[in-house]
Amino acid sequence: MGKIIYTRNTRIEWGDCDPAGIVFYPRYLALFDSCTTALFTQVLGLSKYEFSVKYNFAYPMVDTRARFLKPTKYGDDVVIETWVAEFRRSSFDVHHRLTKDDELAVECFDTRVCVEPHPTDPAKIKSKPIPPEVLAKFGGA
Amino acid sequence: MGKIIYTRNTRIEWGDCDPAGIVFYPRYLALFDSCTTALFTQVLGLSKYEFSVKYNFAYPMVDTRARFLKPTKYGDDVVIETWVAEFRRSSFDVHHRLTKDDELAVECFDTRVCVEPHPTDPAKIKSKPIPPEVLAKFGGA
Amino acid sequence: MGKIIYTRNTRIEWGDCDPAGIVFYPRYLALFDSCTTALFTQVLGLSKYEFSVKYNFAYPMVDTRARFLKPTKYGDDVVIETWVAEFRRSSFDVHHRLTKDDELAVECFDTRVCVEPHPTDPAKIKSKPIPPEVLAKFGGA
Amino acid sequence: MGKIIYTRNTRIEWGDCDPAGIVFYPRYLALFDSCTTALFTQVLGLSKYEFSVKYNFAYPMVDTRARFLKPTKYGDDVVIETWVAEFRRSSFDVHHRLTKDDELAVECFDTRVCVEPHPTDPAKIKSKPIPPEVLAKFGGA
Repeated sequence: MGKIIYTRNTRIEWGDCDPAGIVFYPRYLALFDSCTTALFTQVLGLSKYEFSVKYNFAYPMVDTRARFLKPTKYGDDVVIETWVAEFRRSSFDVHHRLTKDDELAVECFDTRVCVEPHPTDPAKIKSKPIPPEVLAKFGGA
Repeated sequence: MGKIIYTRNTRIEWGDCDPAGIVFYPRYLALFDSCTTALFTQVLGLSKYEFSVKYNFAYPMVDTRARFLKPTKYGDDVVIETWVAEFRRSSFDVHHRLTKDDELAVECFDTRVCVEPHPTDPAKIKSKPIPPEVLAKFGGA
Repeated sequence: MGKIIYTRNTRIEWGDCDPAGIVFYPRYLALFDSCTTALFTQVLGLSKYEFSVKYNFAYPMVDTRARFLKPTKYGDDVVIETWVAEFRRSSFDVHHRLTKDDELAVECFDTRVCVEPHPTDPAKIKSKPIPPEVLAKFGGA
Repeated sequence: MGKIIYTRNTRIEWGDCDPAGIVFYPRYLALFDSCTTALFTQVLGLSKYEFSVKYNFAYPMVDTRARFLKPTKYGDDVVIETWVAEFRRSSFDVHHRLTKDDELAVECFDTRVCVEPHPTDPAKIKSKPIPPEVLAKFGGA
């Protein structure tokens, strides 16, 4: 199957930058989390609140790795591309590429697991298979 | 040489948690950045502002990887341990372990480079060797 | 009654500062929220998670005003003092003073309401009187 | 003069919400700061980095007040309107309205001062008149 790519054109915010004038790196990860939400929203046609309820799942992060190749500063125009690199039974990998002037500035590799939130204790969750309807929307088998 | 470990006992903040009631993972990285600063401050006896000026260096992140093994929720008491795993000529690795009830909840592996900030353009920096005085304070060769 | 003041000595973080080198002002409000939690924890002897469950209440912000008199930069040592200025039936005011070198740098005035979280819909809440046990712990009538 | 209004249609992010499922209020202020930048960018035709350099000014916050009338949760579509309510010699007021389903959810009133950043010490700044070219672009006298 061809992968579905979510693309965001955005501008680096003052409030995401540190005293060196460049993005404080944890904020890139918040941006990438937002792009993962937007990818699922694009594919499922629902907001995160809606798809969490409809399919009864959440996808907490279990492993993330980011490489910072070039800094970006406030006011810079950047492009973020986000896609699911692989779906497994109850986990999946999401990759992100952030480019500035067509040069790779940051790349990030996430692994998330599919879980059911525990109904009353937010600290407790249990693993579940990725909902088949979700897989189907991504064009998966 | 024996490694120098910075240890922080802290409580998870409401404002660092997401609607699942657990830490929004990018905030762990901000905590780890803060602990890296605190480690250097402990060893060098200077605030980040002071040691940046005195030794004329910054240490931007070039690679970070985090593994999230157990969630932590607001009000949880956790312990973070941070140390330099390896110094190289102009780069170094920092490791972090966050435990809750003596169980590993998050671990993180950073690689930073030592740079001189460009005097006028915050987006431009150049690599430099780790200052010998800094290495010496860490007990290095 | 004498007011109970929570006092925090803290150091301004790199990651809370912007390209001007000073605190990005919304982060002061996150600090003040954390100090409000710490005040209640000090008085009630419970973490926020614990006191929310025990007394079944939350206290969302309805009005906040902050004045920024002097900037603070990363590495600065500051003192924050936080207290309840007034309790009303189902709302209360919290004040904060942040000083650097004994000079007032920021002050903030919050009004919060006491609510019961709706059991299933996090966007729905209803007002309730401040729990009498909470008032009593603060020394109130 | 008719006021120039910057309007942003946006969706509330998961990472901006707290364990109550609603926006952690300091993040609204970061959003409003971003909208103030966008307003100036719209009017001046330059990014913040560009207009800061071209007109040699910054506009730190000196006073902000926000009222939170209705909560918003992740996935909610909201509209933010931002405009300059008044320009004075070296300060100005910015107002923000955030609506959900055409109902006012948050309003915020900022006062900023116009300053020149000190060339070497980021903690030192000095007040200056709002640059006439900036005033003119806003249609002011």
